[in-house]
Amino acid sequence: MARRPTIADVAQLAGVSRATVSFVLNNRPGVALTTQQRVRSAAEELGWTPSRSARALSTGRTRAVGLVLTREPELIGTDPFYPAFMAGIEAVISETGDGLMLQMSRPGDEVETYHRLAADRRVDGVFLTDLRQDDPRPALVTELGLPAVAVGVVEADTDVPTVNLDDRPAVRSAVRHLIELGHRDIAYVAGPDGFVHARRRRQAWADALAEAGLPCGTSLPGGFTAEGGAQATRALLNRSSPPTAIVYGNDLSATAGMAVAQNAGLRLPEDLSVVGFDDVPLASWTSPPLTTCRANPTSWGRAAAQALVETIEQGTAGDVELDPATLVIRGSTGPVPVRGGR
Amino acid sequence: MARRPTIADVAQLAGVSRATVSFVLNNRPGVALTTQQRVRSAAEELGWTPSRSARALSTGRTRAVGLVLTREPELIGTDPFYPAFMAGIEAVISETGDGLMLQMSRPGDEVETYHRLAADRRVDGVFLTDLRQDDPRPALVTELGLPAVAVGVVEADTDVPTVNLDDRPAVRSAVRHLIELGHRDIAYVAGPDGFVHARRRRQAWADALAEAGLPCGTSLPGGFTAEGGAQATRALLNRSSPPTAIVYGNDLSATAGMAVAQNAGLRLPEDLSVVGFDDVPLASWTSPPLTTCRANPTSWGRAAAQALVETIEQGTAGDVELDPATLVIRGSTGPVPVRGGR
Repeated sequence: MARRPTIADVAQLAGVSRATVSFVLNNRPGVALTTQQRVRSAAEELGWTPSRSARALSTGRTRAVGLVLTREPELIGTDPFYPAFMAGIEAVISETGDGLMLQMSRPGDEVETYHRLAADRRVDGVFLTDLRQDDPRPALVTELGLPAVAVGVVEADTDVPTVNLDDRPAVRSAVRHLIELGHRDIAYVAGPDGFVHARRRRQAWADALAEAGLPCGTSLPGGFTAEGGAQATRALLNRSSPPTAIVYGNDLSATAGMAVAQNAGLRLPEDLSVVGFDDVPLASWTSPPLTTCRANPTSWGRAAAQALVETIEQGTAGDVELDPATLVIRGSTGPVPVRGGR
Repeated sequence: MARRPTIADVAQLAGVSRATVSFVLNNRPGVALTTQQRVRSAAEELGWTPSRSARALSTGRTRAVGLVLTREPELIGTDPFYPAFMAGIEAVISETGDGLMLQMSRPGDEVETYHRLAADRRVDGVFLTDLRQDDPRPALVTELGLPAVAVGVVEADTDVPTVNLDDRPAVRSAVRHLIELGHRDIAYVAGPDGFVHARRRRQAWADALAEAGLPCGTSLPGGFTAEGGAQATRALLNRSSPPTAIVYGNDLSATAGMAVAQNAGLRLPEDLSVVGFDDVPLASWTSPPLTTCRANPTSWGRAAAQALVETIEQGTAGDVELDPATLVIRGSTGPVPVRGGR
């Protein structure tokens, strides 16, 4: 494979320093005309064009935005949020030829990762996703002077613009829908409590029960995984008085829960009603099709990218509140079973 | 939000050109000692560190690898391959703090996108995925001098190292498994024929039928989507003599096909056997659990990243052939129904 010519090759051929080459190609004044000509013909001869790296020095823009993922790789592969969210980001930034720079980080290395992104100026700005309780990042990016947009709710006081899509109305609608169907014992299988969005979904379920004057329901952790959803479902169904409906933190755990219930001989929705969250492409193709909550992560990614571009170019952007998630009623929810009918 | 200091600010404070600042901070000789000191204290005062952009000029490395996605955004969100593949890439490159630069491209803009990546030196190298028939990219990156690794089979002659994982043994095993169960009429629902991997999976199904001395089966396009899989399944089941087993190009279309069959009153696997491809997390939680092919895109991403790093550092890398995909037998395949038993 042919080696690409570098600025050093041009400098050598022209008999000048690399700094002079950079100076000439960025049209800076103060270089003798004959030197300018020597540099330009050397660059032409070698087929060398000033790189984005060089231009970033002069324009202050790297033409990339960053997304640091602090999840375990396995969790990224099974969560439908990120691919859809990134597709929304790409739809906006690809218009200007910008790229999306992905970096993986462990929770403990996160602060260092952002420090490096800012120091190295690898990106013009970053998205803050998977916001956590007592999240250090909004304060960190402000301190670093790194343009940023928070995707979701920031619980601390911050200057970072937020782009939010409220999950809660859909979860509250799901609980009300189940109550209208006669359900009174509605359990919840939750995502990891460290994530703000997981906690808010669970809280919306608890709030809707309280609003209807029903007692607190049972909530078990499901970890947003299939295995976690299956385990929690087994635990709920093994109770002496199992719930007649279960609301899950996401579709993956809900679908696994459906399989566990069906393997235990329950008919859905006659014996048990199930609600998910995400509306993954498969949700309408399970048996029965899954009643779930739809949050549109692609439009979320699009709005977040627009806010970040605005923040990069103008220093700040207004907070954005997108249309909230909505309930999609399908076949996995039905009237409460007649008591003793099981 | 505080503006980050730029090289221009340092140059202004030190009373020198930006080129001089770059020269000093990259430890190049030939700048007067007093000037050097002026630049260093100006940089320190402003809290400015030489950016990665600047260092890329001197080291020739940008510390990022590129992945250009030429699919429609919607297809990325529904395909389990990319999140898992990218998790594998990240596992390797995050060790050195490198990032993964994603760019979206339309098929028509692809050549321009690679030209720009190479000219701008935004990345040290690229992965070529979703290889197509008569794919222009292997020749293009060679011409551009852009280090690259082909993920999958390159059909043309090329110097680009390839990292391949053969899908075909798993598909052939699936067909043999169905034949052992007594099936003779085994249909196929294919992914888009333009993708080499979609075509090779379909060819493996056809080859296995031929090897067993069976007549050609029916193949319909399913587009790798749920809707496409559902439509193809309806068409197959509406035939006067429907197949007793269907092999699908991916799990998404297979799961939709299962729902269509069940809605038409068929029991699985008693009346119809179904095989998918991918082994998505939900595959073991469908009813019945899906017999499918497992290809391990995460290890594929890891191997591709290792080969690309080697290519970037040493100019080339050997071709890699990973363990092929394997068949995972679950509950969606069973003995052929007794003739007339439907």
